[in-house]
Amino acid sequence: MKAFMDKDFLLSTEASKKLFHDYAEQMPILDYHCHINPREIAEDRRFENITQVWLGGDHYKWRQMRSNGVEEKYITGDATDREKFQKWAETLEKLIGNPLYHWSHLELQRYFGYKGHLCGDTAEEVWKLCNEQLQNKWTVRSLIKVSNVTLVCTTDDPIDSLEWHKKIAEDPTFDVQVLPAWRPDKANNVEKPDYANYIAQLSQISGIVIKDFATLKDALKNRLDFFHSMGCRVSDHALEYVMYTPASDEEIDAIITKALAGEAIQKEEELKYKTAFMLFVAKQYNRLGWAMQLHYGCKRDNNAYMFRQLGPDTGFDCINNYAPSAQMADFLNALSATNEIPKTIIYSLNPNDDASIGTILGCFQGPETAGKLQQGSAWWFNDHKQGMTAQMTSLANLGCLGNFIGMLTDSRSFLSYTRHEYFRRILCELLGGWVENGEYPDDQKVLKQIVEGICYNNAVKYFGFNL
Amino acid sequence: MKAFMDKDFLLSTEASKKLFHDYAEQMPILDYHCHINPREIAEDRRFENITQVWLGGDHYKWRQMRSNGVEEKYITGDATDREKFQKWAETLEKLIGNPLYHWSHLELQRYFGYKGHLCGDTAEEVWKLCNEQLQNKWTVRSLIKVSNVTLVCTTDDPIDSLEWHKKIAEDPTFDVQVLPAWRPDKANNVEKPDYANYIAQLSQISGIVIKDFATLKDALKNRLDFFHSMGCRVSDHALEYVMYTPASDEEIDAIITKALAGEAIQKEEELKYKTAFMLFVAKQYNRLGWAMQLHYGCKRDNNAYMFRQLGPDTGFDCINNYAPSAQMADFLNALSATNEIPKTIIYSLNPNDDASIGTILGCFQGPETAGKLQQGSAWWFNDHKQGMTAQMTSLANLGCLGNFIGMLTDSRSFLSYTRHEYFRRILCELLGGWVENGEYPDDQKVLKQIVEGICYNNAVKYFGFNL
Amino acid sequence: MKAFMDKDFLLSTEASKKLFHDYAEQMPILDYHCHINPREIAEDRRFENITQVWLGGDHYKWRQMRSNGVEEKYITGDATDREKFQKWAETLEKLIGNPLYHWSHLELQRYFGYKGHLCGDTAEEVWKLCNEQLQNKWTVRSLIKVSNVTLVCTTDDPIDSLEWHKKIAEDPTFDVQVLPAWRPDKANNVEKPDYANYIAQLSQISGIVIKDFATLKDALKNRLDFFHSMGCRVSDHALEYVMYTPASDEEIDAIITKALAGEAIQKEEELKYKTAFMLFVAKQYNRLGWAMQLHYGCKRDNNAYMFRQLGPDTGFDCINNYAPSAQMADFLNALSATNEIPKTIIYSLNPNDDASIGTILGCFQGPETAGKLQQGSAWWFNDHKQGMTAQMTSLANLGCLGNFIGMLTDSRSFLSYTRHEYFRRILCELLGGWVENGEYPDDQKVLKQIVEGICYNNAVKYFGFNL
Repeated sequence: MKAFMDKDFLLSTEASKKLFHDYAEQMPILDYHCHINPREIAEDRRFENITQVWLGGDHYKWRQMRSNGVEEKYITGDATDREKFQKWAETLEKLIGNPLYHWSHLELQRYFGYKGHLCGDTAEEVWKLCNEQLQNKWTVRSLIKVSNVTLVCTTDDPIDSLEWHKKIAEDPTFDVQVLPAWRPDKANNVEKPDYANYIAQLSQISGIVIKDFATLKDALKNRLDFFHSMGCRVSDHALEYVMYTPASDEEIDAIITKALAGEAIQKEEELKYKTAFMLFVAKQYNRLGWAMQLHYGCKRDNNAYMFRQLGPDTGFDCINNYAPSAQMADFLNALSATNEIPKTIIYSLNPNDDASIGTILGCFQGPETAGKLQQGSAWWFNDHKQGMTAQMTSLANLGCLGNFIGMLTDSRSFLSYTRHEYFRRILCELLGGWVENGEYPDDQKVLKQIVEGICYNNAVKYFGFNL
Repeated sequence: MKAFMDKDFLLSTEASKKLFHDYAEQMPILDYHCHINPREIAEDRRFENITQVWLGGDHYKWRQMRSNGVEEKYITGDATDREKFQKWAETLEKLIGNPLYHWSHLELQRYFGYKGHLCGDTAEEVWKLCNEQLQNKWTVRSLIKVSNVTLVCTTDDPIDSLEWHKKIAEDPTFDVQVLPAWRPDKANNVEKPDYANYIAQLSQISGIVIKDFATLKDALKNRLDFFHSMGCRVSDHALEYVMYTPASDEEIDAIITKALAGEAIQKEEELKYKTAFMLFVAKQYNRLGWAMQLHYGCKRDNNAYMFRQLGPDTGFDCINNYAPSAQMADFLNALSATNEIPKTIIYSLNPNDDASIGTILGCFQGPETAGKLQQGSAWWFNDHKQGMTAQMTSLANLGCLGNFIGMLTDSRSFLSYTRHEYFRRILCELLGGWVENGEYPDDQKVLKQIVEGICYNNAVKYFGFNL
Repeated sequence: MKAFMDKDFLLSTEASKKLFHDYAEQMPILDYHCHINPREIAEDRRFENITQVWLGGDHYKWRQMRSNGVEEKYITGDATDREKFQKWAETLEKLIGNPLYHWSHLELQRYFGYKGHLCGDTAEEVWKLCNEQLQNKWTVRSLIKVSNVTLVCTTDDPIDSLEWHKKIAEDPTFDVQVLPAWRPDKANNVEKPDYANYIAQLSQISGIVIKDFATLKDALKNRLDFFHSMGCRVSDHALEYVMYTPASDEEIDAIITKALAGEAIQKEEELKYKTAFMLFVAKQYNRLGWAMQLHYGCKRDNNAYMFRQLGPDTGFDCINNYAPSAQMADFLNALSATNEIPKTIIYSLNPNDDASIGTILGCFQGPETAGKLQQGSAWWFNDHKQGMTAQMTSLANLGCLGNFIGMLTDSRSFLSYTRHEYFRRILCELLGGWVENGEYPDDQKVLKQIVEGICYNNAVKYFGFNL
C-alpha cells in the first residue's frame, strides 16, 4: 500500500515518477485563466484564518457541505469560522474519491506542512496550525511567489479600468506579471435585463455612443485596444453553447435597438445577436493575436429558494447537455471563410463533448502556431483525475498532445496553485504509463520536451507572453 | 491467474479484500426497488426447475439468446424447459464480459453450491443439481432469508389493494418487511389509450369522482395516504425524460377533459400534463417524507413483429438518448421555489447522463438529510462492473460518495440478491483501490462507516425505515 | 519497463499473450470494408517512396501535421516528398498516445523490418530503408498476400462497371477475393446539387428511365442484382444520422420530381426521401441476404478556406453529435413490421453512442444468424486503443461479444492491414484480462473459438462468403 499522498502521489510507474520529479515538478506556473482579485495582489492581502481562505467564497466546498446535509448556517450563514471549519472537516472525510479531498490535502501539505488527514477529529489541530501560519507567514504575494508562478491572467470586464493591474505592474517589489483577460459577457448577453444599462457604461468609458452594431463594434475595439496596451492577450466567453445563427447587420441593428429600449428579446434574436457578436470579436482577437477562450455547457442559478437568499455563484450550477457540435463547427467555419480564425481554446462542462471537440479542433488548425486550436484542460466539474485523464487521452487520440498548453486554476483562491501539481502528476502518470507499457519509446530527450512543454513552455509560446 | 470467481472475485488489492470481507460481506440487504410479486412471497412459492426461475420472465436472458441466433421456440416458445436451458447454457459461454455471466454464476455458487462454469457441456449436471434443490430445499421465503434481506419494496399501482402486503405483514412466521412502493405511471400517461379506463378505476377505488385536475389530485392524495398507512415510503416513475413544460391548472383541466373523452392528446399537451402531475406528486412526497425515484431514458417495445407475438416487457427496449438536462434542472427548480423538493433518486438509462445528473443533484441538496438528492445505482443496461464503477466514480467526483444509498436489484427474480454482493465487490474494489494507491488514508474507522453505510445503513436512514 | 512495441505490445497478462500468440496471430484477414482502389490491385501498383504511400492521400496524417503547425506546402503542397516526410517525422514524435504513432510503427516493423522509432533524427534512415524496399520488394499484391488477407470488400458506386473486380477475379495468378461493396450515397443524397445528374447516369447504366420512386426502385434493383452477381454481399451508407420520417409514395414521387427539376429540396423533404430510400434498400438487402452497413455521425468539409483549395476528403471532418436513438429504433422497427430487417452493422462516429447502439441491436436480433445486428468496430476517430476497448466492452456488457464480426481497415492504404493486428492485440488484452482476473474461466477450448471467431471465422459465416 502506498502511503497517503506521499511524494509519489498518483505516480505508479518508474517512468511516471521520473517524468514528474525530473521535469514537471520544477517548471514554473503560468496561470492563464483564473478569477483571483487583482486588488488583493496589489494590496498583498493577509487572511485571519483558514475558513476565510477556504470557505469564504468557494462554492465547490459549499456544494459538498450541502450534499452532506449541513445546515446553511454553517456554510454561508452566521456560524463562527471555527464552527464552519468543523462542519467542513466532517464533510471532507466522506468525500472519498472527490478532488476536493486531494486539493485540500495538497494545500495543507504544500503551504502549511501538514502531513495528516483532515477529519472531524483532526479539525482543531489543523485549524491552529493553518491560522498561525496565515497570520504570521503568508500573504497573497508570498503564496504566489512560493508557488513559482511567473504570470497570472485575471478575468476582467471590458469596462474595467484595470487600475489594480497598473499598480501591480508599477510595483518594483513584485515581479510576477498580473495581466488582464477580456471577458465581455455582459456586452454579449443581450437578453439580460441589465444589458441597456451595461451598454450605457460601455459608451461612457469608450467615449463612443453605442446605438447600433457599428457603434458597438467601435466601442469594443476601443476597449480591446486599451486591454491590449495593458498586456492582455487572451479573452474568455461564457456561452450557453457555441451557437451559429447568422443574420444581417440590419437585423442585429434592430435587435440592439429593441434591447436598448428595454424590450424583451426573443430566443432567436438572442442567438442571432450572439452569433454576430462572437464573429466580430473572434476576428478582432485574430487581428490582435489574442487567444479566444470559449467556456460553454453550463446552466446557472438553478435553485430559486437559495438564489433568493444568496444570489449567483453560490454553488447552484449544473451541466447543460444541449450543445450541437454542428453549430460549433459552423461558427468556426464562418471564420475560416476569410481565414480569420483566432487561436481558440474550447472548454465544455459536459465531459461527453471531449470527442466532438477533439475532432472539431482538427478541422481548423493552421500554420500560425502549433496547436492553434486547443481543447482546454478539464474544466470545473471535470477538474479531477478521471476528467483530466479522459481529456488528455481524448486529446492524444484525436490530436497532438505534445502541443497542449496545459493547466490553469480557474480559481478564486490563492492556494489553488497546487492544482497545477495535481495536473502534472496526472499528466506524468498518463505519459509514463505509456512509456512503461512500451507504447512510446523511452526517449528522454523528447519526453522532457513534451512534459516541460505541457507544464509551461507551450503556454508561453502559444500566448506570446514576454517571459 | 486468479481462480474463476473465487472468494476474492473482483477484488484485486489487499485493501479492497479487507473492506469487502471485514465490512461489506456481512451487511444485511435492504432492497428498496424491485419487481418481485408479493403474492409469491405470501404464498411462499416453490419452483420446479431452474428454467422456471431463470427463463420464465427474464428478458435480459431472452435478449442474449436472441443475440445468439436462438430460435424463439427455445426462448418464449413451446420447447421443453430442458431444451430451453440447453440453449441458454450454450449462449452463456459466448457471453464473455457480460454481467449475466457473473450473475448466473454467483447464483449457481451461492444458492446451489455449484463451483464449475455453465456451458453446453455442463448444462445437464447443472440442470439436475439446481432442480433437485429447487424442489426440495428452496422456497421464495427461504431464498429471501438466506440472502440476509431485512426489507423489500415492491412496485405497485395506486389502485392496488395491497392485500398480499397485508397478508405478509400479518404473518408472524416471516419477519422480512415487504412494503409497497407507489408507481403511478398509468395515471401519468395521459396519452395512452387506456388512460380514461384507468382513471375510472382510480375514481372507483378512491371514492372520488375524477373529472378535472383538482379531483385527480384528491383521488391521488387518498391513495397516497393509504399507501403511507401501509408503510410505503418510496415512489417510482418511468418517464421518457424529466420534462418541464409548465401550464396553468385550467390548461390541465382541459387536457384531462379531452383524455377522459377518449380524444387524442398532442405531444405538447402530454408534456404539460406530465409536468403538472409530477410537480403535484413531488410535493406530496415531500409532505409525506417519501423518496421520489425517477427512471428515464428508455424507449420501449421497439420490435413490431415480436410485439404482436409477445406483448410488452419481453426484451425489446432500448436507450432513448434525448433527455435535456436543462429541463430536469428546471423541474427541480420549480419545486425549489416553495422549498418543496422531496428526497429524490434519479436514474437514467443513458450512461452519458452520469455527469449531468451528478451536477444537478448538487444544486438541490438540503439539510433534511445527508444526500437528499441521489443518483440511483447503475440501472438496467448499465447494471454491470463498468456501469457501476462509472456511476460511483462520477458520484465521488461530483458529490459525496459517503452518503450514497447504494444497491437495489430492480429484479423480478428471487435469486437476484447476489447482485448486491456483485455491487459490494465492485464498491470495495473501487474504494480499496484508492486507499491502496494513497489517494485516501487507510483509516479503517472511517472506511468501515463508509462501506457499511453504502451497503445498508445509509438506505435505512435515508428512507426512515423502522429496522 | 516493456520494450517499445515488442512482440507482446499491448499484452500485459499471460492469458492475453497466450490468446494472441496461440490463436489470434495466425488467423487470416477478411477486410470487409475498405476504400482501396481495385484498379491498383488489378495493375499491381508499385510505389516510389514512403511519402507516396503514407502521405499521398491519408488525411489522418494531414490533420496531425496541421495540428502541429506545419505549413500546407509540406502537407498537400509542392514541397518535395523528402521534405514532406521530414515534417511528418517531426510531427510524429509529438503524437504520444495517438493511434498514428502505433499504426506507423507497426507498418515500419511488419513491412520494412524497422525496429527503431521514427522522429526528426531518424527520418533519413527510415526514408532510405522504406524506399529501397518499396522500389524492389513490395507491390500492392505482395503486400496483400504477406498480410494473410483472403478477401477484401472495396467500396463502390451503383453505377460502377466493376471492371477491375472482374479483371482481378479472372486473373489466375492472384487468389485473394476482391469483391465490390454497394454504396449508393449519391442516389440517397437528394438534397445535393449533383443528384439529377447522378440519376441520369443511373438511368443510363440500368436501362431504366428514372422519373419517380417506382422507377428509381427498379433501377436500383437492376444494379443490386448486378452487384450480387459480382459477389457483392455487403452495402454501406454514410448518413447524417439514422433518420425516420415516414411519408407516402406520392410524397416521395413529388420530391423526386422536384429534385430532378433541379429545385431546392427542403430539410423535411430530404428526411422523407432518405427514410423511404433506406427502407427500400434495407428490404432489398434482406431479400438478397446482404449485410447493411450504416455509418453516421459525421459532419464533413468544415473548413471553407481549405475546401476552396483542396476539395473534400482532405481532413476537415468532425463528429456531429445530433443522432436521436429513438429514430434509429423507429427505422428498424418499421422494417420489423414485415419481418424484413437485413443483417445490419451500425457505426457511429460519436463514441457516446456505444450504449444506445448496443441496446438497439438487442431489440432486433433474429434467428437467421448469430449476431444478426452488430455494432461495427470502433470507427475512424475512435479507431484506437481506448475506442476499441470501449466499443468491445460495451458490446460485451450489452450483447454477445462472442458473435462479434470484428475488425475492418476502412483504409485507402495497402499497409493498413496491421490495424487488424492492432485490433487483435487489444481484443486479446481485454479477454485475457478478464480470464486473468477470474471473471471468465480459463477454458481454452471456448476461448480459442471466441478469439478465432472474432478475428475471422465470425465474419466468414456472417457474410456467407465462400472461403
